[in-house]
Amino acid sequence: MTLSSDNLIGGARVTGAGTPWHAVAATSGAAIEPAFVSATAEQAKRACQLAEEAFDAYRETALTARAEFLEAIARNILDLGDDLVTRCMEETGLPRPRIEGERGRTVGQLRMFADVVRRGSFLGARIDPAQPERKPLPRPDLRLRQVAVGPVVVFGASNFPLAFSVAGGDTASALAAGCPVIVKAHPAHPGTSALVGGAIQRAVAECGLPAGVFALLFDDGIAIGQQLAADPRVAAIGFTGSRRGGTALMRTAAERAVPISVYAEMSSINPVVLFPAALASRGAEIGRAFIASLTLGSGQFCTNPGLVLAVDGPGLDAFLAAAAEALPGVAAATMLTPGIHKAYCVGVAALEANPAVTRVAQGQPGSAHQGQPALFATTGAAFLSDNRLADEVFGAASLVVRCADAAELHAVLAALEGQLTAALHMDEADHGQARALLPLLERRVGRILVNGFGTGVEVGHAMVHGGPYPATSDGRTTSVGSLAIDRFLRPVSYQDLPDALLPAALVEANPLGVPRSVDGGPAGV
Amino acid sequence: MTLSSDNLIGGARVTGAGTPWHAVAATSGAAIEPAFVSATAEQAKRACQLAEEAFDAYRETALTARAEFLEAIARNILDLGDDLVTRCMEETGLPRPRIEGERGRTVGQLRMFADVVRRGSFLGARIDPAQPERKPLPRPDLRLRQVAVGPVVVFGASNFPLAFSVAGGDTASALAAGCPVIVKAHPAHPGTSALVGGAIQRAVAECGLPAGVFALLFDDGIAIGQQLAADPRVAAIGFTGSRRGGTALMRTAAERAVPISVYAEMSSINPVVLFPAALASRGAEIGRAFIASLTLGSGQFCTNPGLVLAVDGPGLDAFLAAAAEALPGVAAATMLTPGIHKAYCVGVAALEANPAVTRVAQGQPGSAHQGQPALFATTGAAFLSDNRLADEVFGAASLVVRCADAAELHAVLAALEGQLTAALHMDEADHGQARALLPLLERRVGRILVNGFGTGVEVGHAMVHGGPYPATSDGRTTSVGSLAIDRFLRPVSYQDLPDALLPAALVEANPLGVPRSVDGGPAGV
Repeated sequence: MTLSSDNLIGGARVTGAGTPWHAVAATSGAAIEPAFVSATAEQAKRACQLAEEAFDAYRETALTARAEFLEAIARNILDLGDDLVTRCMEETGLPRPRIEGERGRTVGQLRMFADVVRRGSFLGARIDPAQPERKPLPRPDLRLRQVAVGPVVVFGASNFPLAFSVAGGDTASALAAGCPVIVKAHPAHPGTSALVGGAIQRAVAECGLPAGVFALLFDDGIAIGQQLAADPRVAAIGFTGSRRGGTALMRTAAERAVPISVYAEMSSINPVVLFPAALASRGAEIGRAFIASLTLGSGQFCTNPGLVLAVDGPGLDAFLAAAAEALPGVAAATMLTPGIHKAYCVGVAALEANPAVTRVAQGQPGSAHQGQPALFATTGAAFLSDNRLADEVFGAASLVVRCADAAELHAVLAALEGQLTAALHMDEADHGQARALLPLLERRVGRILVNGFGTGVEVGHAMVHGGPYPATSDGRTTSVGSLAIDRFLRPVSYQDLPDALLPAALVEANPLGVPRSVDGGPAGV
Repeated sequence: MTLSSDNLIGGARVTGAGTPWHAVAATSGAAIEPAFVSATAEQAKRACQLAEEAFDAYRETALTARAEFLEAIARNILDLGDDLVTRCMEETGLPRPRIEGERGRTVGQLRMFADVVRRGSFLGARIDPAQPERKPLPRPDLRLRQVAVGPVVVFGASNFPLAFSVAGGDTASALAAGCPVIVKAHPAHPGTSALVGGAIQRAVAECGLPAGVFALLFDDGIAIGQQLAADPRVAAIGFTGSRRGGTALMRTAAERAVPISVYAEMSSINPVVLFPAALASRGAEIGRAFIASLTLGSGQFCTNPGLVLAVDGPGLDAFLAAAAEALPGVAAATMLTPGIHKAYCVGVAALEANPAVTRVAQGQPGSAHQGQPALFATTGAAFLSDNRLADEVFGAASLVVRCADAAELHAVLAALEGQLTAALHMDEADHGQARALLPLLERRVGRILVNGFGTGVEVGHAMVHGGPYPATSDGRTTSVGSLAIDRFLRPVSYQDLPDALLPAALVEANPLGVPRSVDGGPAGV
């Protein structure tokens, strides 16, 4: 399979302009062919124009047709075969099983959204039938459905080159909602992006959809992304990345003549709370499991456990001893990009330099592009007096906070910003203490989990991968799981429309067979 | 009943500070006793602190207890009897039947939300049961519910002194979601606000809820409102009012250390499209109905028909002739405040002065505080070349745009900003033309209605009183109807929590009997 480095716009390959740039092999820093050339401002504009033109037709595609489109994308991604896996490995440094697993997740996500589209409950259909005899005024016939918001811009994430990139969760949920998607490829994996973009572009053509339903644009800078975010035809933004990048998009979106929604998933240190009985009965075991989670994928997960809290004592000592014993055996692993590796080293150095922090253990040292895992410890008092200790260090580093007592542990949690996850390790004897923390945790995080770690985000219907700011820009939503489709919908009400003019989902006879709620009752077909 | 002019904070009456000010009788401009004194910054801070302290307890009230609280508020408002009606009439100039009707709507809204709370489907409960045998990895148990976002600040609207003020839709939906509410009373009807605030405060006490669940603050300036919007304990804002006021709140909310949601309902001219067959068969009849809708309540509705579009011809002439015949018989009516009256006069004068605009008819002239209804006409070409013609004139003024053809009519609609409603007057022969406009209308408005006018907003489950910016700050929501509860909720996911620690809505045995979706299927009990 030949790899095209062109932008994909309007069903065609379009060569950009300017200085060519290359993907970089994560393990060596060497340039990988072919060269990429960034999209021009004019090309980005054209992608928005075509998305706008495609929108009305695409958002009214039959539910089955839209589901088949999502399934066609999944099939075309699998059809890329090993070319995709090897290119992705080369660009990201991630090992084959991880890439293959992530491909499975990506394809599974697309198929889940195909099911969601076929079921039609995302349309949120509601009917309040007319009551012509009501006094003093007759009640009109009112029907409501959710409609797609408009063209969506998706920014590929560096750390999930498949599952949160060109055909990742944001793209799948936006397409499922009925929104055309313009992807700004992450420059860390342009070849992977080009391959997956081609798979989507082929699916658009195979399914006979308007070509403007999908575009893929390359840029190794920020100009195209900012332009897309400001384009008046764009209705929403999906982003996974740094806090700096996400807040810049939030500003751009808020300053538009017509402000739009930004769904940015940005940063999280994912507190882990170790309760006394669990520590006493299995502190060492938890310590070993923690090291496995911390160092998984070189720690490059949004849900990586970056902060561990426990009341000081022999149980915590056992946890730390086991962690300190396990970590030196863990090899350094290649990080996604030189920039991420550098930021990791800076973050670790800041912890090393902090007089209130001690190093508990390190993993094995690695090559120039590998992150050496590291575990640090501090006290609750020190943590509370230095808010730099709550900064995310993206990679396999974590900070254990020895709290003087349960009150201090509570204070440390209360001082945290919004987080994606909180993990609680507990035995039954810990339930009382855990229960006391739950109200606080519900306000701080999007997902609370017990006796596990946040890494490994299940793609399902009850998943929330989100959380209060700054974990995300909008804590009312999730970026993983079927609920993510709601981000790209808005309600429209139809009053006294003749049946002939109603959208199919609201026609009296319910020809689509979608669930509808009548007079606020449970949704049924 | 004695009218207290104090702020209501923490279950107590609290006197503000500064220069006293008075409500003004809408008909005469005369001051009405008693004097009000604005809340202090310290008092506003305390209201936020108490709301924060009450939040965790209030959001976990049993559903029946919360429903009973909403019903107690409704009962207490009715118990205010005629004192409320007469004070409200005096402050707003609105006639008795309107005030009594609005009281009925307010009470009905509270009871509807009580039903919504009892049903529990707003909790959005989802369960993905564990699959311990799944390969390669077991699936965890995942459960999701919606939780209240936190304390909400509600700004009372001037034009709905009951239904969108102290105990109005924003307050009812926020309390239903489980959020404490701090109301900033509108200075145009402080006495009405004080009476209704007292009714809520009594309900809080009667139901044994934490006193911080509700506060009412007075201020005749903007300082207290801006302070509330910036307070770190406030999680969301509900506002109905001017575009300037709404966008100022949006800016404040976006610039906070932790940005929050603003649900501002701001401005709309609510286009009315008259199709040819309907005009031909009953142009005059529609013209008379239009005048009745235009002048209802002195035109002081967000959904007032401020723009009428039709293709020029004899049918439109008949519509205009009937409208021109009907309007001079309509009396001028008292407007809500001297400020609103003045803005109305400025808006009408601007239309009078516009050389591209002709005056079709006027209603009867009135006293110093009354708005004289006015109907103007222009051409599609003129409208498209002068965007001032799309400015909202709040009151009983409207502009008819004579379009050269269907294409120009489409262009005029396409040039509009987001709107709350669009009304289509059509006969069966018009269906083709109407169908061609629907995709555009769905993108521009929150509610599309046929053979009626947008005034008269039904409080139900399928209502959308919302729409794209600048009709509202957030087109993903509605401020009227049961769907409004979603504005004050966010999802939280619980992974592998022992049953003993799960919130009641998610406990395996479903003790609350709330609808729950299992594995993405239809929600059932």
